[in-house]
Amino acid sequence: MPLEFTVMKESTNSRARLGRLKTTHGVVETPVFMPVGTQATVKTMTPQELEGLQVEIILSNTYHLYLRPGSDVVAEAGGLHQFMNWRHPILTDSGGFQVFSLGPLRTISEEGVQFRSHLDGSKHFISPEKSMEIQMDLGADIIMAFDECAPYPADRSYVQKSKDLTTRWAKRCQAAHTREDQALFGIVQGGVYQDLRRESALELLELDFPGYGIGGLSVGEPKELMYEVLDDLIPVMPREKPRYLMGVGSPDCLVEGVLRGVDMFDCVWPTRLARHGMVITRRGNLPIRNLPYARDFTPIEEGCGCYTCQNFSRAYIRHLIKANEVLGIRLTTIHNIFFLTRLMKEIRQAIAADSLPEFAREFLGAFQGEK
Amino acid sequence: MPLEFTVMKESTNSRARLGRLKTTHGVVETPVFMPVGTQATVKTMTPQELEGLQVEIILSNTYHLYLRPGSDVVAEAGGLHQFMNWRHPILTDSGGFQVFSLGPLRTISEEGVQFRSHLDGSKHFISPEKSMEIQMDLGADIIMAFDECAPYPADRSYVQKSKDLTTRWAKRCQAAHTREDQALFGIVQGGVYQDLRRESALELLELDFPGYGIGGLSVGEPKELMYEVLDDLIPVMPREKPRYLMGVGSPDCLVEGVLRGVDMFDCVWPTRLARHGMVITRRGNLPIRNLPYARDFTPIEEGCGCYTCQNFSRAYIRHLIKANEVLGIRLTTIHNIFFLTRLMKEIRQAIAADSLPEFAREFLGAFQGEK
Repeated sequence: MPLEFTVMKESTNSRARLGRLKTTHGVVETPVFMPVGTQATVKTMTPQELEGLQVEIILSNTYHLYLRPGSDVVAEAGGLHQFMNWRHPILTDSGGFQVFSLGPLRTISEEGVQFRSHLDGSKHFISPEKSMEIQMDLGADIIMAFDECAPYPADRSYVQKSKDLTTRWAKRCQAAHTREDQALFGIVQGGVYQDLRRESALELLELDFPGYGIGGLSVGEPKELMYEVLDDLIPVMPREKPRYLMGVGSPDCLVEGVLRGVDMFDCVWPTRLARHGMVITRRGNLPIRNLPYARDFTPIEEGCGCYTCQNFSRAYIRHLIKANEVLGIRLTTIHNIFFLTRLMKEIRQAIAADSLPEFAREFLGAFQGEK
Repeated sequence: MPLEFTVMKESTNSRARLGRLKTTHGVVETPVFMPVGTQATVKTMTPQELEGLQVEIILSNTYHLYLRPGSDVVAEAGGLHQFMNWRHPILTDSGGFQVFSLGPLRTISEEGVQFRSHLDGSKHFISPEKSMEIQMDLGADIIMAFDECAPYPADRSYVQKSKDLTTRWAKRCQAAHTREDQALFGIVQGGVYQDLRRESALELLELDFPGYGIGGLSVGEPKELMYEVLDDLIPVMPREKPRYLMGVGSPDCLVEGVLRGVDMFDCVWPTRLARHGMVITRRGNLPIRNLPYARDFTPIEEGCGCYTCQNFSRAYIRHLIKANEVLGIRLTTIHNIFFLTRLMKEIRQAIAADSLPEFAREFLGAFQGEK
C-alpha cells in the first residue's frame, strides 16, 4: 500500500478529524497545509529551512516541471525528491488546473487538452495517460487524476459535462497508473451545484481511490458558497479516506475547512503574499512595505517564534522589500509559512482537546483579513 | 583604541603577512576578504548564513544607505549592526566612489560633491564632513575617508589635482570624526602614477590614520599595472597598519594582492557573479546557467564542503536559475562566498607555513578565469 490513512480522532462537536497519512517518504499529521513548490522549489526557501519550519509535505506542479526542466530530466535525476533534495512527502497536481488556466491557448477534447506553452509558445498535448506518465516520472508520493476544472461562474450544463468528462478521465488515469509507490487521488468536481458534486463523489467512490481531492473551489465564488458546498459534499465522502481541498490556504478558510472535515490543503497564497510584501498576523494581513512601518522597530508579530520575528524589525524588512532585496521576501516567506504550520498545529491540538469550535470562534473573531 | 592591528607573522619569501584586526565588534583574521552588503544585506543571505560561512566582517555602502532607508532611520534603529542584526565587524565606504560613478549626475568642488539620486533624481550634497556624519550615524567599526577616485585612464595633471584634493578632504574627515568606537581609514589615491601614489601615501601617513585604503585601482586598468602599483606603493606604507585594497575580489587578484602585502579586500564581484549564474571553481568560473549543465547531476565542485555542493546538482541549480527562482542565486551565492572564505583561510595557512609562493603558483596555474 503506497498510502495508509488512519483517522486518529473525530471531533464530537464538528466534522473535524485528526489523521495520520503514511506515504512512501514518511508520515504527515493531518489536517495539514502543504506549501507549494511550483518549479521544484518552494519559492525563496531551502529544503533545510522548510524542515526547520516543520513542513511535512509540499506540493509541486506537473505542468511547470513538464515544460521546464522537463520530466525526463527530473526522472534522470532519480525523481523529484532527489532532484530538489526534499526527503519528505511530495504531492503533484495533474497539470489540469494550470492548462485550463491558459484560456485561449488551449483546446479541450475527449482525448485530452492541446495547449501552447506559456514559456515559448510551443505546442503540447496532455491526456490523462500523459499526465500519469509525467507524474510517474516525477515520482511524488501522492499524485492527482487529470481533471477538468470548470470556471466560476459557469452554467449547469457546462459543469455537468465537465464533471462527466472528469469521471471518464479518472478511470483512464487509474488504468494508466502503474507505480506502486505512489497513491493516485481522484478529484471531485461539479462547481457550486450540490447535486453534481454528490454525483461526482459517488462516481469516483466506485473507483475506490485511496484519497480524494475537492477541485474547482476557491476559483472566484464567495467563500460562503464554498463552505455550503463542503457542508453538503463531505458527508458523502468516505470517512476512511483523506479529503484534500485544492488551492485553499488563507487562515480563515483553513479553519472553516477543517471544521467541515477537510484533511489537506495547498495554496500559493501565503508565499505569493510574502513576495508582495504582505505578512500574516493573528489580526490579519499587514502590508509591511507601506510607509507607516519605516520606523517601526518591533517584529512583524510580538511573541512569534519564527526566525524573522526573533531577529528583524518591521523597519528593516520594509527597507529590504522597498530596495528589492531578496532577503526581504525570504524573511516574509519564512514568517508566513511559520504562521500557517503553527496554525495547523494549533488546529490539531484543538481537535485533540475537542475544543476546535471555541478555537475557531476566537481565531476568526480576531483575524480580519487585509488591514 | 577603536582598532588594534597586530602583525602575527611576516613571510620570508613574499610581502604577505598574517594579522589580527581587533575592532569594537570583534576580531578579524587577516588577510581577509569582505563580502559586500550594499543595502544593509549581503544580497540573498541571512546574517546567520554568513556566520555559517565563517565571514568575519562585511562592507556596507554609505551612499546607498544614506538615500535608502536614510542614515537617520539606521541611527534610530541603534546603528547598522542592530538594524541588520549583524553582530560582527562592519566597514562602511565613504560614498565617494558611488557618487563619482554617477558621472553627469554629479559636480565636484573643493567643498564636496553635488549629485542627484539614482533612485528619484533628488538633489544631494556630500562633503567630507557630511560623509563622516552619515558614517557616524551608521556606526560601522571601520569607516573610510571621503576621497575622489580618479577614473582610468586619466591624465597626470587630473590625477595629481584629484590626489591633492583627497589629501585635503582626509584632513577634514579626521577633524570631523568624533566617534571613539570607530576607526577612520585614509585612502591612498594617485591612479597608476607611482610617484603620485607615493606622495599620497606619505601625505596621509602624516595624518597617522589607524589603517589605509588603496583606492582607485581595479577601475579598468590591466591587472599587471595594478600589481606594479602595489609593488611600488606598499613598501612606503607602514608595517604596523592594515592595508586595504578596495574593490578587488577575484581569486587571482586576492592571491596576487596578498603576495604584495595587502591585508583586506572587498568586492561585489563574487556575489554579483553568482546572481548571473556564474560559479567559481578551482579551475575557473563556470557559467552554470548554460545548456551543457542541464543533465549534469554532479555538484558544482567535487569535494567542496559548502551547503550547495553537499546537497544539490549542477542540473538543479541550472534549472532554478533558468526559471528565475530565488533559490538558484542563493545557492550560487553560498558557493561563491564559501569559495572565497576558504581561499583566504588557505592563504593564511600558507603564510603560516611560509609556503605562500608555492600555494600561489599552484592555485594560479589551475585557475583559468572564465571558462
